[in-house]
Amino acid sequence: MNIKTLNGIIAYPITPFLAESDQIDLTTLNLIIDNLIDTGIGAIAALGSAGEGAYLDEKEWQQVAEHTVTYVADRVPVIIGISELTTGKVVQRAQFAQTIGADVLMISPLSYYPLTEREIYQHYETVSNAVDLPIMLYNNPATSGIDMSPEFMLSMISGIKNVQSIKESTGDIQRMHQIYTLSGGEVPFYNGCNYIALEALNAGATGWCTVAPCLIGKQPKQLFDAVQQGEALKARDIFYRQREFLKFIVDKGLAASVKSGLAMQGVNAGSARKPLLELDEASHQKLSELIQKTLA
Amino acid sequence: MNIKTLNGIIAYPITPFLAESDQIDLTTLNLIIDNLIDTGIGAIAALGSAGEGAYLDEKEWQQVAEHTVTYVADRVPVIIGISELTTGKVVQRAQFAQTIGADVLMISPLSYYPLTEREIYQHYETVSNAVDLPIMLYNNPATSGIDMSPEFMLSMISGIKNVQSIKESTGDIQRMHQIYTLSGGEVPFYNGCNYIALEALNAGATGWCTVAPCLIGKQPKQLFDAVQQGEALKARDIFYRQREFLKFIVDKGLAASVKSGLAMQGVNAGSARKPLLELDEASHQKLSELIQKTLA
Amino acid sequence: MNIKTLNGIIAYPITPFLAESDQIDLTTLNLIIDNLIDTGIGAIAALGSAGEGAYLDEKEWQQVAEHTVTYVADRVPVIIGISELTTGKVVQRAQFAQTIGADVLMISPLSYYPLTEREIYQHYETVSNAVDLPIMLYNNPATSGIDMSPEFMLSMISGIKNVQSIKESTGDIQRMHQIYTLSGGEVPFYNGCNYIALEALNAGATGWCTVAPCLIGKQPKQLFDAVQQGEALKARDIFYRQREFLKFIVDKGLAASVKSGLAMQGVNAGSARKPLLELDEASHQKLSELIQKTLA
Amino acid sequence: MNIKTLNGIIAYPITPFLAESDQIDLTTLNLIIDNLIDTGIGAIAALGSAGEGAYLDEKEWQQVAEHTVTYVADRVPVIIGISELTTGKVVQRAQFAQTIGADVLMISPLSYYPLTEREIYQHYETVSNAVDLPIMLYNNPATSGIDMSPEFMLSMISGIKNVQSIKESTGDIQRMHQIYTLSGGEVPFYNGCNYIALEALNAGATGWCTVAPCLIGKQPKQLFDAVQQGEALKARDIFYRQREFLKFIVDKGLAASVKSGLAMQGVNAGSARKPLLELDEASHQKLSELIQKTLA
Repeated sequence: MNIKTLNGIIAYPITPFLAESDQIDLTTLNLIIDNLIDTGIGAIAALGSAGEGAYLDEKEWQQVAEHTVTYVADRVPVIIGISELTTGKVVQRAQFAQTIGADVLMISPLSYYPLTEREIYQHYETVSNAVDLPIMLYNNPATSGIDMSPEFMLSMISGIKNVQSIKESTGDIQRMHQIYTLSGGEVPFYNGCNYIALEALNAGATGWCTVAPCLIGKQPKQLFDAVQQGEALKARDIFYRQREFLKFIVDKGLAASVKSGLAMQGVNAGSARKPLLELDEASHQKLSELIQKTLA
Repeated sequence: MNIKTLNGIIAYPITPFLAESDQIDLTTLNLIIDNLIDTGIGAIAALGSAGEGAYLDEKEWQQVAEHTVTYVADRVPVIIGISELTTGKVVQRAQFAQTIGADVLMISPLSYYPLTEREIYQHYETVSNAVDLPIMLYNNPATSGIDMSPEFMLSMISGIKNVQSIKESTGDIQRMHQIYTLSGGEVPFYNGCNYIALEALNAGATGWCTVAPCLIGKQPKQLFDAVQQGEALKARDIFYRQREFLKFIVDKGLAASVKSGLAMQGVNAGSARKPLLELDEASHQKLSELIQKTLA
Repeated sequence: MNIKTLNGIIAYPITPFLAESDQIDLTTLNLIIDNLIDTGIGAIAALGSAGEGAYLDEKEWQQVAEHTVTYVADRVPVIIGISELTTGKVVQRAQFAQTIGADVLMISPLSYYPLTEREIYQHYETVSNAVDLPIMLYNNPATSGIDMSPEFMLSMISGIKNVQSIKESTGDIQRMHQIYTLSGGEVPFYNGCNYIALEALNAGATGWCTVAPCLIGKQPKQLFDAVQQGEALKARDIFYRQREFLKFIVDKGLAASVKSGLAMQGVNAGSARKPLLELDEASHQKLSELIQKTLA
Repeated sequence: MNIKTLNGIIAYPITPFLAESDQIDLTTLNLIIDNLIDTGIGAIAALGSAGEGAYLDEKEWQQVAEHTVTYVADRVPVIIGISELTTGKVVQRAQFAQTIGADVLMISPLSYYPLTEREIYQHYETVSNAVDLPIMLYNNPATSGIDMSPEFMLSMISGIKNVQSIKESTGDIQRMHQIYTLSGGEVPFYNGCNYIALEALNAGATGWCTVAPCLIGKQPKQLFDAVQQGEALKARDIFYRQREFLKFIVDKGLAASVKSGLAMQGVNAGSARKPLLELDEASHQKLSELIQKTLA
């Protein structure tokens, strides 16, 4: 696909589990995907942080990837998230994603040992050579343990064939200003830190990668539209209505928070994988209030 | 004065020194003040970081404070910056500022030993009890060594008579979101970190405290106006035109950078006080390019 | 085993790969194990950071674990390192280690999402309930992304049956002082940050977990002995002789550095797994000098 | 003086104030100095952090400096601490210290604006050229806002005439290892972070700069002696007896803590200067317990 057409809200489904067997609950996954598409999103991104991609075994991971592509059925593009320690394993998953018909790969390096830029570059280059899909660089040191600078990511976009765009999740708005400035506004970048959505979109982000529509529906899309249409004050109002909610789900963990919120809304998506625990009672209550306030 | 009327660009004059004697150059200070007022600013703030307030001796400090109030002569309000280690010294300077007719005090705590919130609270309370002027809390850990949270600053605004507003200079936009959210948008806050101006104003900042108009004239005011008028895309353009310049003068030191830039523009304001050094030749050249690019 | 008897140098073999097939090179592993035991170590720890445990697939991991226990054949105790994301997977590996006859489990939590203390506690408790082996808590935020405080680790030692000791790898000597103080010197703790070995042993560490003997033989043991015998000045000398070497292999990555150093010494252990790269030429040269200086 | 002869415990008197007038209490200062000298110290250092040097006005500062030199009367060497923002002011104080007969200057850079290494180097060079006394570099980013690397400090010792030694107060033991390694053990360095005293002395520190003897008498000297005599296990015991006390007075602020502790011991040294507050009741109680435990 032409990466320039990928914009707006990039929505992340969580991965529902069946309570009895801890297996993937495909029926509930379908429901979540349908609800997301109804909010006017620009793409579905499976197997990101919110989707517990890192907590699934190989078979489960393939099942979610394949089912998502099939069920979305070209209603919107599908992005597949990959975050593995060895280059070999990333290549294997990237090729699988291509085989099943994914549109874009979102790839985060992952550290046990810290990686040098030379190692990261070669990592992406090897993957790029093994597939024929656009690759979105995903920078999220909080989960991956590796922090890539705007300058370094832009050097990979210049130098590696399929690497075409950036998801920036540090929460540091200056990174986005730097990407915009250094690329003359030409390289698409996406916001991956929910609670800086207002400034990210004002800074020129092409889209916002978020699990929030699973719980607050069209509100993220409305914020995106207000900024696109240059309505600064309306955008501020919409943002402040959802800001505390966005901060809360990040702070408490996206997977556990969203599964807790879905349960409130009558969707049983099971629990996040151990050692992740469900929200405690006070947090569950707080989340309920924040959702109501946001949707009021 | 009514603190609610203080908005827009709060401009910081630098403090010019005579080359031969290292004394204050009042003639050049007048020129700088006139130029600032011509750019449509909302107030003049003397003796902030950019004004080398911390590097002046007692007599010099008083001279700059008094001369600024007299020379501005109510064309715009005058804010006096105070940043001293002991409570006693802050009280003495605050009373001096009141005597000479300043409109607002901008006070930063200062650390040698780190201070507890109990110590900071009592510090501001003692000063508030000693004067009859509105006090702007100034949070700038990079220069003062003390970081005050939004929650703590709002508690001082609630509990201490003259404490009425906040200048936030951490560069962390979340602080501003938090101030806005917790105060329901009612407490005036000002951006003190130049290179987050776009997001600060979009987040609801009442004004922008900056030395930038000394070198780039009306550009900060134009950014402020674009956001106020809800013109998001125009604001983004204006911001990106000046962003690298704003980052540069912060990174290289406001006083040294602005004095270097003024020299390029034919205004001899002397050097910053030792141990501060002038920009080296490469930085001087870079600054020249950034100013030209901004004003192009 | 009685955990109190585990002391001295806990040596970490690297995991050698065959150049052609990238499979485990068991012959070279045997050589490395024999060499380590010859230096007078207190235990062998397989599948730690240095052993690239995180980079192996399931079959390889089991192969190294099983082979190590068998080949060591009770000459010294064998510790098996486990660092997995889900509680289920840790239980599975812990049970495997018990089946093959390991003596101790060294378990690090691992973060994708950050974990709360409640989640970590339950994680270890679940594993403890599933096996009948002593568990060493392994705190290494640089690789695991999770930082456990001394207070929290001691609470797990008090509250969870098999959890009995601590490997502390933050490099912050105060953590060790805190463990010693809070436990009255009763809880065994081991140093996992090579370049603080001198202060760790002086602070009362029971042992030092290190890959260094793979390259510098008996030197770590000599440092341990000097401190045990209360010879402060001799210990200082021995430490400074190896300090730069210890810092270098940590900074450059243990697995890649040690494999590079072994090649110099005529042991071909292959390369570390991609994306890890071999040392560049300058680093290889530097390492060679540091080893010679240490052994001089 | 020959800087090589300066070793052991460098003791810091606090600066006592009279309760009624807030003026310097010279009688109590004499008592404190006598008590310190009785514990076997190697030098007295006036006007350091613990001495509230930064909180005194010009006249008070001169009074304490002059009185200390006179009263010590060559029983031990006297070091004068200087920490001022402008180079001009440091020169003025350094010359004053020389005039009154001080033996050594301990000089910390101080930041409002961050300083570059070029600025810091020139700062010390200017001071060195203005006096004829040995200068001890004092690195304490927590109070001064400036962090000087071992490499940079050693370059000043090589290049600037009077700069001869280092007081390292970051609390990072690696800095001391680095100084020792890079200088081949030839440059004298002193520990300025109380709670790393054990490892600093084991690492080869020439002395320990501390206010602790004001409250716990000979204990710091005993720790110093045990390490010098190579008695590792005795040193460990002595250290752990005082460690919690040392950590406490650093965490709660040296000046306030020591004045609180002196009051317990019947010495009324007044309060620390506002905004510094006295210890609250719970902290006062805790300090009392820690002193008793240390002296038991």
